[in-house]
Amino acid sequence: MDGKVVVGVDIGGTKVAAGVVTPDGEIIRQTRAPMSSRGDAAAGISSVEMAIRALMNGDNPTVGAIGICSPGPLDPKNGIVINPPNLPCWRNFPLGENMRRLFAVPVSIDNDANAAALAEARWGAGRGYRNVFYAGVGTGIGTGIVFDGKIYHGRTGAAAEGGHVGIDIHGPVCGCGKRGCIEMIASGPAIARRAREALEGGGKSALRDLVNNDVSQITGHTVGEAADAGDGVARKIMQDTLDALAYWLGNIIDLIEPDVIVIGGGVSSTLAPHLPEIRERWKGAVVNPWLDEIPMVLARYGEDSGIAGAAALCGTIPNRS
Amino acid sequence: MDGKVVVGVDIGGTKVAAGVVTPDGEIIRQTRAPMSSRGDAAAGISSVEMAIRALMNGDNPTVGAIGICSPGPLDPKNGIVINPPNLPCWRNFPLGENMRRLFAVPVSIDNDANAAALAEARWGAGRGYRNVFYAGVGTGIGTGIVFDGKIYHGRTGAAAEGGHVGIDIHGPVCGCGKRGCIEMIASGPAIARRAREALEGGGKSALRDLVNNDVSQITGHTVGEAADAGDGVARKIMQDTLDALAYWLGNIIDLIEPDVIVIGGGVSSTLAPHLPEIRERWKGAVVNPWLDEIPMVLARYGEDSGIAGAAALCGTIPNRS
Repeated sequence: MDGKVVVGVDIGGTKVAAGVVTPDGEIIRQTRAPMSSRGDAAAGISSVEMAIRALMNGDNPTVGAIGICSPGPLDPKNGIVINPPNLPCWRNFPLGENMRRLFAVPVSIDNDANAAALAEARWGAGRGYRNVFYAGVGTGIGTGIVFDGKIYHGRTGAAAEGGHVGIDIHGPVCGCGKRGCIEMIASGPAIARRAREALEGGGKSALRDLVNNDVSQITGHTVGEAADAGDGVARKIMQDTLDALAYWLGNIIDLIEPDVIVIGGGVSSTLAPHLPEIRERWKGAVVNPWLDEIPMVLARYGEDSGIAGAAALCGTIPNRS
Repeated sequence: MDGKVVVGVDIGGTKVAAGVVTPDGEIIRQTRAPMSSRGDAAAGISSVEMAIRALMNGDNPTVGAIGICSPGPLDPKNGIVINPPNLPCWRNFPLGENMRRLFAVPVSIDNDANAAALAEARWGAGRGYRNVFYAGVGTGIGTGIVFDGKIYHGRTGAAAEGGHVGIDIHGPVCGCGKRGCIEMIASGPAIARRAREALEGGGKSALRDLVNNDVSQITGHTVGEAADAGDGVARKIMQDTLDALAYWLGNIIDLIEPDVIVIGGGVSSTLAPHLPEIRERWKGAVVNPWLDEIPMVLARYGEDSGIAGAAALCGTIPNRS
């Protein structure tokens, strides 16, 4: 490995993934390591350091810049991790400053959805568009907004929490305390939960067969699979999910009118064949008169969106830590 | 009147209001004239021209710049009025170009809520804040977003249609075709409609007395008045309205995290004493951890927000027409 490279680091509650990312957004080398998230702050830092050093494979220091995506809430401007539930090792912790001391390079930090949005805007499905709205639909729904090539942060960095934009004031209570957040309706676990609830009455469904009658094994994917196979219960759940997503995206469009909508995350493959149906439903859910001109496309990055996103941060956010 | 002045023009379906606005946002002179909105395009232009000439009172041309706010949808970049329902005289009409030809000065155009947001950001209750969210709650709910001193337009100029951000996917159908838009729940006519519906069962209410038992006379104000006087039906309507507004503003905050929220429009005086209750309700409707730091304040401009907003456009949007 010659020259200085950009390293993208994706920190989660149980693992750290790190990769070397080219200026075109290709991940040319990557590694995964356990994350010590429940010990002290230093142990957490040590996990991250080890992942980066493992990635560099003992070479002399060739890291030119480090981008990190971490669970939020965090203060991206100052590189401070506030209090993510699944990273108890860090509370109001200056992660950026610590990493900069260790590697003596610029360090940029943001949350995973913001970072993924930037990677898509810079290198992926949102490339060439001025304003990009990214929705990662997976175990949660994380969103990011990129305006003119920069992540839109809002006042403190807590903007673009689109997963908690609610569509049903009378809906189910979310972990955040609010009712009817889209995450409570259209994330993978929410789709599965709604399917389980629908089966509680004991109705017959191909879904039961897919999970050998163990409804606790139902996932968003199995619901999608059963719906595609024509199962009535699963189809109803999927239809409601598409209605909800269309309504929610309608809200996003009417408020920020992006140039493109990029759909990523673990559930995006299940949603992929249904994007035209979401558009069909938009017609009754958006006032924007130029709606048909707004493309909705699948993300370039899948599981690696964190690494790519973290690396993308290096090019656009000045180092402040 | 000496020197060149900025004129703000507020076009509606039945009238044109125009005013001379100082660089500090003071409206020092204004006039109102009928708007010929149902004739041909030239008659519409003529109405606007006459209002401006009446304002200038026969003085030699001293108009330095003209700002116009017009019902949308419109294309603010090119000064084109698309097809507002209450301005049938203009369809894809280059209003900016026509006005510039008449007065030989720069002309800027935007919709009323965007313009009002800019006036508040520049001269009013949003002054000194970087990102301003303005909500004009009146016969409709119009919103505007100002980022860094500029109106946020989105892809075509159709962004910031916050009144059609929906909070209840199962709610009442709005004129736009979507269900549960906040405008269908918290605008003046929506509050009145909900009160009439609540009284349909024949229940006793002080509301009936306020309108001499003619429920068609109920307005948002009468509901507010009856609620303040302790009437049970009216109180329930107001509580639900505050719930809805808190939920909706929670969505706005979680998506764009503004630095300040400015509440204007005809219903704002009814809402004014209840702003602390909206904040109370926010606690369960927003994930933003710094919510308490976001002020919610009443607008500086009332009925004149269109004139002030139109004038504010002159300082920030370059003339493109």
